[in-house]
Amino acid sequence: MHVTSTTSSNGVIERTFTLDDVTGVLWSPESGAPGSPLLLAGHSGGMHKRAPGLVAGALHSVATYGFTFAAIDAPGHGDRPRNVQDQKWVEAIHQARAAGEQIAPIVIDYTTSLAERWLPEWQTTLDALLTRPEIGIDAPIGYEGVSLGVVTGVMLPAVDSRIAALSFGGVFVDAALIEAARKVTIPVEYRIPWDDDQFDRTSEFALFDAFASKDKTMHAYSGRQYPVPHHERESSARFFARHLGRVAGTASD
Amino acid sequence: MHVTSTTSSNGVIERTFTLDDVTGVLWSPESGAPGSPLLLAGHSGGMHKRAPGLVAGALHSVATYGFTFAAIDAPGHGDRPRNVQDQKWVEAIHQARAAGEQIAPIVIDYTTSLAERWLPEWQTTLDALLTRPEIGIDAPIGYEGVSLGVVTGVMLPAVDSRIAALSFGGVFVDAALIEAARKVTIPVEYRIPWDDDQFDRTSEFALFDAFASKDKTMHAYSGRQYPVPHHERESSARFFARHLGRVAGTASD
Repeated sequence: MHVTSTTSSNGVIERTFTLDDVTGVLWSPESGAPGSPLLLAGHSGGMHKRAPGLVAGALHSVATYGFTFAAIDAPGHGDRPRNVQDQKWVEAIHQARAAGEQIAPIVIDYTTSLAERWLPEWQTTLDALLTRPEIGIDAPIGYEGVSLGVVTGVMLPAVDSRIAALSFGGVFVDAALIEAARKVTIPVEYRIPWDDDQFDRTSEFALFDAFASKDKTMHAYSGRQYPVPHHERESSARFFARHLGRVAGTASD
Repeated sequence: MHVTSTTSSNGVIERTFTLDDVTGVLWSPESGAPGSPLLLAGHSGGMHKRAPGLVAGALHSVATYGFTFAAIDAPGHGDRPRNVQDQKWVEAIHQARAAGEQIAPIVIDYTTSLAERWLPEWQTTLDALLTRPEIGIDAPIGYEGVSLGVVTGVMLPAVDSRIAALSFGGVFVDAALIEAARKVTIPVEYRIPWDDDQFDRTSEFALFDAFASKDKTMHAYSGRQYPVPHHERESSARFFARHLGRVAGTASD
């Protein structure tokens, strides 16, 4: 893991890094202590490690809760070159959208391929992050994501037992995602935009139902996917605080 | 309004009161200020103004958020005598339950009748509460409820514009309730117990969908209706704080 820049602002230290081909960013509190929860954030398809909503959530979590927060670019996203096959998928999505056709089938294929490639990169990144002194090998770990980031996040706990809680929203649901959800037993918080017709409520309910987690919560909020209400962002941070043991008096909820 | 007892414990003043035939209880912070939010709590059918979950929520809201909190007994509940017709409904519910039959149809009839009688009592109680010096005529008002308390609460905003936010969970949904919900435009928070087979998810989603509120949230939590998770109780208090203007920095959410 190679730190390529370090800046500091409003009590938050931001480090960009590379790890082999992967490019990422790490936000930590200036006054942080090793062992604080580490959140991994998976951006949506077409976005990158500095997606506006992701950064807003990161700064809130770090400044208000003292979490550490890391994001990496998916293959072909952000600072990483896109290969020929991925480029074809992107063009097919653009064409379908321009023609007023459903993009979900193409997005699902593309997302599945990306998520499978991203998954081992997240694990390697996590290995490296846990060796950093400001994080510490025993940091409890949560994962949050949107769309592409959700698909990766739902697959991750089954292959990596270090992931202890999962918060996400806004994903196209297919049978493979539902199958992956059946293997998830960690606490889950899932938010759905009630009035966003790009998502299918029946599929969303089926996904929520599929999680094997004893503790799971689904939040439906009025409106479309964006903007995510501030109180939902706050709820997500409180969800992690509760399950990763950072808020006195609520750890046993 | 006649205060029949006043006690104080852990910073919370508890007053029992009568108003004509109605019996109620009012919880206020010892260090409260007029103009703080006033929450009205509608108990479930068969329960009363001191239902355990209601009291737990009251003490949390008053102690943590400085709210004032009031509950009254429904007709034939708590300290109020039950009339002959209500007694017949109660017996019919007991018989259906003992026979393993669906109680929902009877509960809905009984609840509708009770809610219609309870509604004007809530308004008269609210008139009286707002004249009390520790509450103040300008206190912003929220309503929370369970089952019977929900039916009353969904009808209340259409006839009383003083109600500014509504939080509830656990109600049998019928067509009349859905019609009432279509008239509700204030912020709504609705929680459903995901794994409780006494409720029908499709009807619950239809109820949520029916609210005309621009700002509405539905929370599904794993498990049955009781116990309501502590974090949901906390979420409800934060919902009211947000909409009734009691938490700095979040009033404009």
